[in-house]
Amino acid sequence: MESIDPVTARAWLATAVEEARAGLAEGGVPVGAALYGADGTLLGRGRNRRVQDGDPSAHAETAAFRAAGRQRSYHGTTMVTTLSPCWYCSGLVRQFGISRVVIGEAATFHGGHDWLAGHGVEIVLLDDPECAAMMREFTARRPQLWDEDIGR
Amino acid sequence: MESIDPVTARAWLATAVEEARAGLAEGGVPVGAALYGADGTLLGRGRNRRVQDGDPSAHAETAAFRAAGRQRSYHGTTMVTTLSPCWYCSGLVRQFGISRVVIGEAATFHGGHDWLAGHGVEIVLLDDPECAAMMREFTARRPQLWDEDIGR
Repeated sequence: MESIDPVTARAWLATAVEEARAGLAEGGVPVGAALYGADGTLLGRGRNRRVQDGDPSAHAETAAFRAAGRQRSYHGTTMVTTLSPCWYCSGLVRQFGISRVVIGEAATFHGGHDWLAGHGVEIVLLDDPECAAMMREFTARRPQLWDEDIGR
Repeated sequence: MESIDPVTARAWLATAVEEARAGLAEGGVPVGAALYGADGTLLGRGRNRRVQDGDPSAHAETAAFRAAGRQRSYHGTTMVTTLSPCWYCSGLVRQFGISRVVIGEAATFHGGHDWLAGHGVEIVLLDDPECAAMMREFTARRPQLWDEDIGR
């Protein structure tokens, strides 16, 4: 697999950020994600829906994965997420063989991306200040909701 | 947490087996699961719904977790599943701090339960011949569907 160019990575992250912002506007957990195919097609996008749907299984990455529907293979696909994936979402990436994860930020929450890198997943960490500011503001304002969302 | 007695473990497994059988009857992947509370209350139950709903994110364990709705804590809860949990479902258990996993069988598929044990989750492996026979028959009859379900 070719490495992703920075312009594409930022453009794909913008899709995930749109999802996160929409979630924030709905009173939800502001994490967004999108799954892109090997050819750069957007396969699915989604956001955390714990509050909106009362669904604790709908993390941003699993929502994007779900929206993409059934796929025969995830080889060459990229999961883009505004935040370092938790163990649940990291497990999804590993099990289904998603090839790459583009991460907005890992400063406010450090999930399983090192583990994924150790299992051959390409990790692109963008250190995006907007993603970090959005989470920092949210976790300060709704600490209990955030703790609930990550099982803490 | 007290250890689970074998009669309770078998009774709880029966709930997961009912789900798996229902999935098989629907033409789906025959894996079932249930989430039990610390006091033994059934919080949620579910089955793999890849075929039924066209939803690749609905593994048995995530379906049971979803059915249980929002919970403040998973401390003391038990996830019962007919089959060793894949990385996706193992990640769910670790992230949310589910305390125990009761597994029907791990002979036809060996998921992440050793990893969970290493992270403090109590694992009860029942080596149930009915669970193993159901998966063995299914994977022989629908190998492509099974491969798709585990991203192989």
